[in-house]
Amino acid sequence: MRELRVELGTRSYPIYIAADLLQQAELLRRHVRGRQLLIVSNQTVAPLYLSTVQAHFDGCAVSTVCLPDGEKYKDLEHLNTIFDRLLIDKHNRSTTLIALGGGVVGDMTGFAAACYQRGVDFIQLPTTLLAQVDSSVGGKTAVNHKLGKNMVGAFYQPRCVIVDTATLTTLPAREFAAGLAEVIKYGVIADLEFFAWLEANMAALVARDQAALVHAIHRSCATKAAIVAEDEREQGCRAVLNLGHTFGHAIETCMAYQGVLHGEAVAMGTVLAADLAHRMGLLSTVDQHRITALLVAAELPVAVPRQLDLEQIRDTMQVDKKVLNGRLRLVLPVALGRAIVTEDFDAQLLQETLAAALHA
Amino acid sequence: MRELRVELGTRSYPIYIAADLLQQAELLRRHVRGRQLLIVSNQTVAPLYLSTVQAHFDGCAVSTVCLPDGEKYKDLEHLNTIFDRLLIDKHNRSTTLIALGGGVVGDMTGFAAACYQRGVDFIQLPTTLLAQVDSSVGGKTAVNHKLGKNMVGAFYQPRCVIVDTATLTTLPAREFAAGLAEVIKYGVIADLEFFAWLEANMAALVARDQAALVHAIHRSCATKAAIVAEDEREQGCRAVLNLGHTFGHAIETCMAYQGVLHGEAVAMGTVLAADLAHRMGLLSTVDQHRITALLVAAELPVAVPRQLDLEQIRDTMQVDKKVLNGRLRLVLPVALGRAIVTEDFDAQLLQETLAAALHA
Repeated sequence: MRELRVELGTRSYPIYIAADLLQQAELLRRHVRGRQLLIVSNQTVAPLYLSTVQAHFDGCAVSTVCLPDGEKYKDLEHLNTIFDRLLIDKHNRSTTLIALGGGVVGDMTGFAAACYQRGVDFIQLPTTLLAQVDSSVGGKTAVNHKLGKNMVGAFYQPRCVIVDTATLTTLPAREFAAGLAEVIKYGVIADLEFFAWLEANMAALVARDQAALVHAIHRSCATKAAIVAEDEREQGCRAVLNLGHTFGHAIETCMAYQGVLHGEAVAMGTVLAADLAHRMGLLSTVDQHRITALLVAAELPVAVPRQLDLEQIRDTMQVDKKVLNGRLRLVLPVALGRAIVTEDFDAQLLQETLAAALHA
Repeated sequence: MRELRVELGTRSYPIYIAADLLQQAELLRRHVRGRQLLIVSNQTVAPLYLSTVQAHFDGCAVSTVCLPDGEKYKDLEHLNTIFDRLLIDKHNRSTTLIALGGGVVGDMTGFAAACYQRGVDFIQLPTTLLAQVDSSVGGKTAVNHKLGKNMVGAFYQPRCVIVDTATLTTLPAREFAAGLAEVIKYGVIADLEFFAWLEANMAALVARDQAALVHAIHRSCATKAAIVAEDEREQGCRAVLNLGHTFGHAIETCMAYQGVLHGEAVAMGTVLAADLAHRMGLLSTVDQHRITALLVAAELPVAVPRQLDLEQIRDTMQVDKKVLNGRLRLVLPVALGRAIVTEDFDAQLLQETLAAALHA
C-alpha cells in the first residue's frame, strides 16, 4: 500500500492507494470517530461496493443515500436529499459521511459534510480514476448552478482518502479515459519525468495494469497534495491545477453537462490552452504536439464539439471562478512540466484559438 | 462610536456601534476590497435604508436582492435566488456581499458568501436588535431545513459588522423585545453587573434611548466576541450562548416558524431552562424569578404556546445540533452571570418542566 499525506496543519490527512483497500475493514473503521455513519453512493456504484463497505460497520448506525448517476444531478436539490436522510435518521454533529463513488458523489458528499450542522467529518472512497487523482484530494467541494459549474461550494477537507485501484477494473472505458486527462495534466503542469513515463506506459494504464495504476495515481496525488499544501484556498499557485478547466468548464456549461464528461472537456481545454500558448510563442510546436499525442493515446477526444457557438463559449468563460476583477485568467503550458497562470494574453489570439477549434 | 474586535487570527474583524453609521460612506467603503457588490435586504428594510447604502458605492457595480421578510423564507430555495443574482450579474471571487437587515438576511447572506465560488467577502449591517447583539457577530450562518432550524450552514466570519442603532427606532415593538431576549441572555450567562444594569435601565431601552442602546449592544457584543474568540466552532464553551435555544428551537420548529419570533422562543426557552435548573437545585428561587421578571419587563412572552404537544417538543429537541452522541445537552443557568452546559440532567425533571409549562 502506498501512503501519502496532504499537509494542512490541523486539517492534514492521509491518502492510501492500493488494490482491494475497500476490503480492509480496519483501515476504514479507524477514521470514523462516532457511531453514526451516512454512506452516499450512486445507482451505478452502490450495487458493486455498498454492501462491502457497509459490512465493516457492524454495530454502528449506518444510513445510506443512493444518488442518480451523473453530473446533471449535482445540484442543490439533490444535495437536499442528503440533508433529508441525515435529519430523518437523526444524525448529530459527531456523524461521519462517507463518499463512495466518483467525483459527483465526492463533491456532493463533501459539501453536505461541510454544511450539515455547519460541518461534520467525511471520508472519500473514490471509485473513478478522475476522483482518485483529482476531485477527492484537496478539499474542493461543490454543486453546480444552472448558470455555472461548481459555483456553490466550500473548501472542506476529508479525514482521509482511500483509493482502491481494483474499482477501476469495472470502470467504463470513456470514464477511465476521462480520468487520464487529469493524470496527464500533472505531467504537463509540474512533472516532466512523469510525462515521459506516461508516454512510455500509456498502453499499460489503458489495459488497467494495477501496478501502473498505483504508480500513476500516487504520482498524481503527490503533485496535487504538494500544491494544495502550499495554497489550500486557491489564492495563488493552486490555480495551475486548472489547466484546461476554464475552457473545459465553458464547454461543459454550453453542452448543459450532457454528452461530454468532465475529463473529456478538460482534454479539449488542455488542447485549446496549448494551442493558445503556442500562438503566443510560449510553447514549442514539439511540446504542443506531444501533449495532444498523449491525450490521443489515452483515447481522449481532443476536438471541440462542432455544435458549440463561439460567442457562447467566450461569454461563459467570463463567469468562470478564475476571473479576477473582471479579467479572465488562464493556465497556459509553457513547457512539458511547467505552466503559468496569467491574465496577460492576447484577446485576438484567444479568438483565433477558439475559431480554429470550432471551424476545424 | 464604540468599536470592538472579534479576535480570530487572520479572520479577526471589527464591530462598530453608534447611531447613524449607515450614513458614513467612508466607514463602509473601506471594508470593500473589489469593485463588485451585492446588497441583500428584505421587503421591509430595503425601502428604509437600501438607497442610502447603495449611494455610498458610486462607481462600483452594485447588484441587489430583496428577500421576502421572515424566518420561513430562510431556506435553500431562497438562498438560491442570491446565487441566481450573483451569476446573472457575473460576480467573481472578489465580490463583496452586504447583509442589510435582520438575522434572516444576515444568516442567508453570510451562508451565500461562504458558498459562492467557495467563499467571498461579506459585511454585516444588522438593522434589528437581535441581529446587532447576536446573529451578526461570530460567524454562524445557516438556512433552515423543514426538519430542523439552522441545520445547513457554515462558520464563516464577516469582514466587519456595522451597527447603526438609529435603525432600531423603526423596529416594531415585538421585534425589538425579541432582541432584548438575547441581550438579557448575556447578563444571565456571563455578566451579573450587566444583568443588574438591565434591571435598572430596561425602561430606557424599551423607550429606545440611543445611549442606553449603544451601551447594551456594546456590552452584549463584547461578551459574545470574547466567547467566540475562545471557541469559534463551538467545540466547547461557545455552547453556553445557546441558553434557552434548545427549548426555543424546538418551540419554533413545532410552530413551523409561524406565530413566534426567534427571540420570543428564546425567552420562553430561557424560562424553561431556569425552571429545570431550579428543579435540579442548581438555581435559587430568587434568581429564577429575577430572570423571569426581567424578560417580562422587556415585554417578552414567557409562557409556552398552549397548542404545543409535549411529545413533539421532546422529539424535536433530540435532533437539535447540541445533541452529542445521542445525548441531549442543555445550557442551564446556575446563578445570575453564570451558566453551565450539561448532559447530566434528570429526564424526569425535564418532563416535569415541560409538563408544568404546557399545563400551566
